[in-house]
Amino acid sequence: MQAEIITIGDEILIGQTIDTNSAFLGKEFNKIGVSVYQITSVQDDKEHILKALEEAEGNADIIIITGGLGPTKDDITKHTICEYFNDVLIEDKDVLAHVEHLFEKYINTPISDLNRRQALVPSQSTVLKNRFGTAPGMWLERNGKVFVSLPGVPYEMKALITYDVIPRLRATFKFPFIKHRTALTLGLGESAIANRIEAWEDALPSFIKLAYLPSLGRVKLRLSGKHNNRAVLEAELQKQVEALLPQIQDIFVGYEEDASIEELIGNELKSRGKTISIAESCTGGKIAQTITAIEGASAYFKGSVVSYATEAKVDILNVKEDDITTYSVVSKEVAESMAQNVRTLFNTDYAISTTGNAGPTKGESDAEVGTVCIAISTNEGVYSEEFNFGNHRQKVINKATNKAFEMLRKEILKK
Amino acid sequence: MQAEIITIGDEILIGQTIDTNSAFLGKEFNKIGVSVYQITSVQDDKEHILKALEEAEGNADIIIITGGLGPTKDDITKHTICEYFNDVLIEDKDVLAHVEHLFEKYINTPISDLNRRQALVPSQSTVLKNRFGTAPGMWLERNGKVFVSLPGVPYEMKALITYDVIPRLRATFKFPFIKHRTALTLGLGESAIANRIEAWEDALPSFIKLAYLPSLGRVKLRLSGKHNNRAVLEAELQKQVEALLPQIQDIFVGYEEDASIEELIGNELKSRGKTISIAESCTGGKIAQTITAIEGASAYFKGSVVSYATEAKVDILNVKEDDITTYSVVSKEVAESMAQNVRTLFNTDYAISTTGNAGPTKGESDAEVGTVCIAISTNEGVYSEEFNFGNHRQKVINKATNKAFEMLRKEILKK
Repeated sequence: MQAEIITIGDEILIGQTIDTNSAFLGKEFNKIGVSVYQITSVQDDKEHILKALEEAEGNADIIIITGGLGPTKDDITKHTICEYFNDVLIEDKDVLAHVEHLFEKYINTPISDLNRRQALVPSQSTVLKNRFGTAPGMWLERNGKVFVSLPGVPYEMKALITYDVIPRLRATFKFPFIKHRTALTLGLGESAIANRIEAWEDALPSFIKLAYLPSLGRVKLRLSGKHNNRAVLEAELQKQVEALLPQIQDIFVGYEEDASIEELIGNELKSRGKTISIAESCTGGKIAQTITAIEGASAYFKGSVVSYATEAKVDILNVKEDDITTYSVVSKEVAESMAQNVRTLFNTDYAISTTGNAGPTKGESDAEVGTVCIAISTNEGVYSEEFNFGNHRQKVINKATNKAFEMLRKEILKK
Repeated sequence: MQAEIITIGDEILIGQTIDTNSAFLGKEFNKIGVSVYQITSVQDDKEHILKALEEAEGNADIIIITGGLGPTKDDITKHTICEYFNDVLIEDKDVLAHVEHLFEKYINTPISDLNRRQALVPSQSTVLKNRFGTAPGMWLERNGKVFVSLPGVPYEMKALITYDVIPRLRATFKFPFIKHRTALTLGLGESAIANRIEAWEDALPSFIKLAYLPSLGRVKLRLSGKHNNRAVLEAELQKQVEALLPQIQDIFVGYEEDASIEELIGNELKSRGKTISIAESCTGGKIAQTITAIEGASAYFKGSVVSYATEAKVDILNVKEDDITTYSVVSKEVAESMAQNVRTLFNTDYAISTTGNAGPTKGESDAEVGTVCIAISTNEGVYSEEFNFGNHRQKVINKATNKAFEMLRKEILKK
């Protein structure tokens, strides 16, 4: 069984909006054993949308359409779907009441006729209630195929998929079985890993595929299996994973299906009852922000000082001015002092610090663009390393953040 | 003139990787007057890639293919393009030397035959050197159409587009003219804006389209014009913008073509010689990270304290324990105290603070999930507001961050 995703909106094609919806949809469909055959992003243009619908109907059993359902004139998805189904728009009383309620409760501006038109839906469609916004989801069927039109706002779309679309699909179809197992690794490159596991990879059965997904010092190894017999697939996948793990033990962190690398590291802290604080310079809050994006991070994260200005390193983190003069603000010595002092300040078991130059131009130090020193402090001492993460600002920040988590994990696992 | 983007990789279709490349490509093509007709994401599957290439060749003059160029076995783009062009792979000496050099200089693992195979390219292709990685770009032409295959790693692809592909396209084609003008607004909803500017919108000429792009309390208004005569288009766009601005003056921040909202606010600080510091609780470093993502932020940003734990608010930010007991840790009083004290700590002109509960469960305070108090401190006093940003963790964090910038901007513009 295959799905196709059509995302509608000029804003995607001219690059103003990154399409994050499709990745969510891909994940959710794979969980129920539906492959996404293709993602097609098209303009807010009637003929183009009609063409995409027709092609998708040829390729797939389930067609998910996102976007183009706003109240304004540029949004034509609803009218175009009506045309595709030779249908007419009718007013849905429940949607109208919902729109009016949302305006009354949350929105400061008075409701307009444009907003009320959100309640118009194709007469053949089943309305799916949008918990977080005004545009309803619409479910249509024809010749055994399902078409679902959803708003493009990510959290509105996600709730509709989770609470309405997936349960309805399960009730409508019987799905084959797909399973992924994705090993998260840290600290070794894609081709070095490929070389190491070549014999194992070559011997994989035809219904299991391996993919390498490298990103800034991390490589994900994704095993994807598809089989009509769930037990056969699960047993084979398990067998293959058990053969793989001993070959990557030194770099293996956990499975993506369970959690992200940051979450897995957070769990290591939590299960040991340990706490952490951060002192960030060149990463500018990215490490703290990555930690606090995780629910329940307050169990192990106490806080961070983003000491961007040199004076903040001295005044708040008690880095000695002499050290900055002697070693420069981007130095292992200053990183170590930042880590030790922030650990004292927040009274935590671990502390990480970063100081460096993310570029694009040299800062207060003479350090080459891309130079980053990372230190980690524990109750047994302090340790630091110097890196060069290249000359791309966002890449330097992201690589430094990834490396900080890698060093932290090594330190935690020592005990 | 039209382009089509084909992104290749199972990781996109199963949702493990968000396709950020297409948005970059859409932006860059629009700058040179090329519309992106469609973005098509397909699997690492020969037949599917061939079909996508054929359809794209029918729709567009320029076909950009990203992804599937890694050294490992799942990457088949190069072989498939060879088949599409009835071509053979040959070894390129320069690419081989480059790959060997990269391994010698930056990569800890020894080079393998897999890596050396990166130097194989279709014999009809012009090789585009990848400054930041091993997989080269490849440029092919047939029947007046251009095909470019690029690596999927974003920063490698971006450099190839900027330094090689765009200059070559300019040299190969004569482009029509497209221009966008995108007004960034803060503080009013999509349909309220639409109501306000309805008469103006209805009177727009047919070659200028308006789109509303709402996101978490911000709405972008994008005017897109396409015309063969550059002067006519620029004059009309200017005229329309001048008619629009007086209607949105209270919510208008600047143009997206110039900078992001955060950058525009940073520029306001810089031009006034003012500085800022942050005290973040529920936003967990997101505000600092958003500021420091901008090049040159050190001119106005001194630093931030992420006081996630309540004790950090007391120990580092000198919030009075009495205030926390009396008003609760999520309160306007505590937010105000955080803002005032962090401003003193970093000695800045402005300070913003956030304290709240991003969810999904209640924290140390009894505050409802989604409650956030934001305060802003200046040398003239302190001001705070309480909000509820809903029950979605990442949305609460992002909305609070957006609102903090909105409040900061209002405060800066008072002087």
